Amino acid sequence: MKIDFEKVVENLKENDNILIITHASPDGDTVGSGFALSLALKKLGKRSYVINNDIYPEKFGYMTSLQDQKAFDYDYIVSVDVAAPKVMGKKVLEHFGDKIDLAIDHHATHAQFAKQYYVEPDSASNCEIIFKIIKALGVEIDRDIANCLYTGISTDTGCFKYSSVTAQTHIVAAELIKCGAMHSKINEAMFDTKKLSYLLLESQCLKNMQILYDGKVCIFEITREMARETGCDESEYGAIVALSRQIEGVAIGVTFKEKSSGKIDVSVRTNDEFDSSKLCMRFGGGGHARAAGCSFECTLDEAEIQVKSAIEDILRGEI
Amino acid sequence: MKIDFEKVVENLKENDNILIITHASPDGDTVGSGFALSLALKKLGKRSYVINNDIYPEKFGYMTSLQDQKAFDYDYIVSVDVAAPKVMGKKVLEHFGDKIDLAIDHHATHAQFAKQYYVEPDSASNCEIIFKIIKALGVEIDRDIANCLYTGISTDTGCFKYSSVTAQTHIVAAELIKCGAMHSKINEAMFDTKKLSYLLLESQCLKNMQILYDGKVCIFEITREMARETGCDESEYGAIVALSRQIEGVAIGVTFKEKSSGKIDVSVRTNDEFDSSKLCMRFGGGGHARAAGCSFECTLDEAEIQVKSAIEDILRGEI
Repeated sequence: MKIDFEKVVENLKENDNILIITHASPDGDTVGSGFALSLALKKLGKRSYVINNDIYPEKFGYMTSLQDQKAFDYDYIVSVDVAAPKVMGKKVLEHFGDKIDLAIDHHATHAQFAKQYYVEPDSASNCEIIFKIIKALGVEIDRDIANCLYTGISTDTGCFKYSSVTAQTHIVAAELIKCGAMHSKINEAMFDTKKLSYLLLESQCLKNMQILYDGKVCIFEITREMARETGCDESEYGAIVALSRQIEGVAIGVTFKEKSSGKIDVSVRTNDEFDSSKLCMRFGGGGHARAAGCSFECTLDEAEIQVKSAIEDILRGEI
Repeated sequence: MKIDFEKVVENLKENDNILIITHASPDGDTVGSGFALSLALKKLGKRSYVINNDIYPEKFGYMTSLQDQKAFDYDYIVSVDVAAPKVMGKKVLEHFGDKIDLAIDHHATHAQFAKQYYVEPDSASNCEIIFKIIKALGVEIDRDIANCLYTGISTDTGCFKYSSVTAQTHIVAAELIKCGAMHSKINEAMFDTKKLSYLLLESQCLKNMQILYDGKVCIFEITREMARETGCDESEYGAIVALSRQIEGVAIGVTFKEKSSGKIDVSVRTNDEFDSSKLCMRFGGGGHARAAGCSFECTLDEAEIQVKSAIEDILRGEI
């Protein structure tokens, strides 16, 4: 059942032993939301514990190390930044999937799996919602809470770069800096630290890249051999995919990824002249106008021939 | 003479033909400051014209194309974001160097060259000062002015990433988004467009990089041959220098640059464990604790031998 903001605050006030569920493959927004809310609840004299299906990345240590309590008998379960049951991860889903009392989320696609849910799809980050809740709970935001909330806002907006950012996003960031958030240290850790394995892969991609059609099209290939040689994990490929379209003059960026399964995954990024999803739909894929994907069960070379032919069609205005 | 904020506003109100000087090698903050102020003055019925010693980069076209007036007989000259006379550039300096009526700046090192100056060193960008001035002039901030001011704030703070960012920076950004600033389009143009020549150079640097001392030290080399092959201009080397210290685990990043003059320029970046300036001072250079530089009149190999020996000393705590 959908509930309003006041009811969210009331429920949190009424319960004293609160378990908080964050999503698997934890990012800054779910971790920041979970630990900020947990710290605030403890400041009200409640018990609270944050769980995650996976191991928290080391870089979030300044937040996750704030958990001093052991698990306890909870009587209320809240999920934060969890858009659908499956993103809780297998273990958490099995234990808690059907027991969530309240879901607090900012995804427009929220799957309404909890007994009660509160969703603000216009919020650039879930931490902006948690900020409002903590204020409404009457808890003073200290430096630790501010660091958690700032992390969520900053990471979910590419450091205030994405179109999802609103005036409210900046207003909350200003408040958090006033509360002592160590913004530049957080941003340095989140944005200015690059994995060597990623950089080696990027270097190889750049060495072999194809710039076609007067510089309008860039094609990257990530082979299994390149992944092996560089030690780069598939979870790091996102930045390569983004880079394919960030090169000056490029309107269509295509990345071919040879997966360990043998399948070829293709990611397409376009500027506003072209529609990525139309290109990918030709091959049974889909997505958004500027970011889409499709898959092939063939060799990388065969997949490239097919996609290049589709690119020629899209450049001629025939897709 | 130093003047206060009210006097700045009064002077701008009293004068009707105002020339605005921006600094050479124009960046987003000087261009944003100049054109925002000029647009605001015109909304008050005044004449205003922005000049620069150099050609404006194409990416600033959405600001510089807003200048519809031709030059005119000005009776008041204002400089914006100009820290010292020499940064005006040779031509502008010759014509106007000793004629500036008012300097509006945010550099702590402001050289006090104008008849009157107003400096806010705690302002992360000059555009934050111009924002306040425009408000005090009673001019409504429209989308064009908002785009100019947002550009200055965003570019001078690495999109809200640097330690110079304050709560006020975010508060102004929020106001500008409310006034219609096209923030995500601006950020995409400023931050997500990469030159192919730069990426090719980065790729070559990564291919030849040295990771030493258990991954604590990264060394990049940019030879004249690499610059020639990739077409990368010296003005683009900054990102390589920054990258040398952004690799996970690296505490000291050193970039050797073989200049067209034959000289070897060395840029050092360190984390807070080590002092870049102490390392560079050994070779007659200097700078800040985390960013410094020095030069050598010898071959790249010879310079490397000397710097590596200094790195060993700094790692042993002997510098």
